[in-house]
Amino acid sequence: MTSPSADHFNLRVYYEDTDASGVVYHANYLKYFERARTEWLERRGLDHRALAASHEIVFTLADLRLSFKRPARLDDRLRVTSRIAEAGRARLMFDQSIWCNDEVLIQGEFTVACVNIATFKPQRLPFAIREER
Amino acid sequence: MTSPSADHFNLRVYYEDTDASGVVYHANYLKYFERARTEWLERRGLDHRALAASHEIVFTLADLRLSFKRPARLDDRLRVTSRIAEAGRARLMFDQSIWCNDEVLIQGEFTVACVNIATFKPQRLPFAIREER
Amino acid sequence: MTSPSADHFNLRVYYEDTDASGVVYHANYLKYFERARTEWLERRGLDHRALAASHEIVFTLADLRLSFKRPARLDDRLRVTSRIAEAGRARLMFDQSIWCNDEVLIQGEFTVACVNIATFKPQRLPFAIREER
Amino acid sequence: MTSPSADHFNLRVYYEDTDASGVVYHANYLKYFERARTEWLERRGLDHRALAASHEIVFTLADLRLSFKRPARLDDRLRVTSRIAEAGRARLMFDQSIWCNDEVLIQGEFTVACVNIATFKPQRLPFAIREER
Repeated sequence: MTSPSADHFNLRVYYEDTDASGVVYHANYLKYFERARTEWLERRGLDHRALAASHEIVFTLADLRLSFKRPARLDDRLRVTSRIAEAGRARLMFDQSIWCNDEVLIQGEFTVACVNIATFKPQRLPFAIREER
Repeated sequence: MTSPSADHFNLRVYYEDTDASGVVYHANYLKYFERARTEWLERRGLDHRALAASHEIVFTLADLRLSFKRPARLDDRLRVTSRIAEAGRARLMFDQSIWCNDEVLIQGEFTVACVNIATFKPQRLPFAIREER
Repeated sequence: MTSPSADHFNLRVYYEDTDASGVVYHANYLKYFERARTEWLERRGLDHRALAASHEIVFTLADLRLSFKRPARLDDRLRVTSRIAEAGRARLMFDQSIWCNDEVLIQGEFTVACVNIATFKPQRLPFAIREER
Repeated sequence: MTSPSADHFNLRVYYEDTDASGVVYHANYLKYFERARTEWLERRGLDHRALAASHEIVFTLADLRLSFKRPARLDDRLRVTSRIAEAGRARLMFDQSIWCNDEVLIQGEFTVACVNIATFKPQRLPFAIREER
């Protein structure tokens, strides 16, 4: 379901992540996905500060889709996998999944736009990522 | 874009909602949408506690889709509109939008499943909502 | 326990605020207190944007103390009271409480420092607040 | 400033943690401290689920105090140190600090009460922790 080259990011569920229904509050999965995308970029030498400073670009979400299979619970050890499904001139589409053991709990698709930090106009993707396609 | 009968929920943006890019952190829009669905249910006499106690049901998200048009900022006064796009036997689809003044900032579609509180098996929607269709 | 002139701010507890122990997650009370301080300032004509723009100041927390009496629960309607316990040249101390019905759930003391937005050097309190003492 | 036996917990600052003033939102430091206390307990064989299941106890915060020296920023790598300052029959007091490099950013004191999961009556600390004193 994930390509062999998919990146892995590990985390655990703390009290802060859960809600009174006893499972992870749905909005908090977006935080897990975003942490994993941050680490994905960093493994390519691109952190938020560097992108802003040397490229004058920020990544901003254009749209996203989540599909909930099963909830995660307090103390669960989770794994987020991330891969590029598609890359345009100024956009990246990430396919991401949250796993517990060998089961996918949540699937997400995220379209991220690369924009100029001041004007918010679309900007070409940095070279390190274009290579990835 | 919203039907005249759409429900309205008002809120403002506090520091807690924003991030270092100066705008509302994307996951927090899901909180706004959920507050509005909670109020929507309540106006139909269905609050979470009553649903759990008298119907033994909880609502759980099956999937969602967000489309980001423009970001909201600190101190913005926002309005969330909510309407039922579709209702099945055990599912509701909400169309929701977050507005600032006359502009839609974020659009969301949420499929909510009605399940038994213990077994998590699909459960028929409560009468008050079936009426709504 | 609160002076007659104490400001009141009302809110309700949503799923986002709770955790798997079934009550409000402790860190989220700080959000409630901060919303109430924001509204307190605004009723004195001082919102964050205006303070930053016309006075070049921001308020920053120097220290805080919380005392937990009883937890708040999902759907609770809460009231936050705020009053100035002490005001110095560049500091304000707020006494705040979170109430449910006639019971105090959480008490908080917050020392807020007024600093220059660029240098973070202490700055004299704006006139509208000095009057308050 | 921390004893040689103090426990260390490492984390980094993500967008989710920051606010529009460009630094970590103050309530989020409580999450960092709580993650570190969770790991501290676990290294003593006590996780939340085990405590609830075999001892019928939960830990609940009685009070806390935070002192803010300097803010943490996006992408900062932080270290949380935790040590027991005092232990009573049914209470623990943690001294915790958040560090960036060799500098303390935030200091916290947390009084944690050990209570029965159903009655919320004070309960004797589990043996593994009493040993720690």
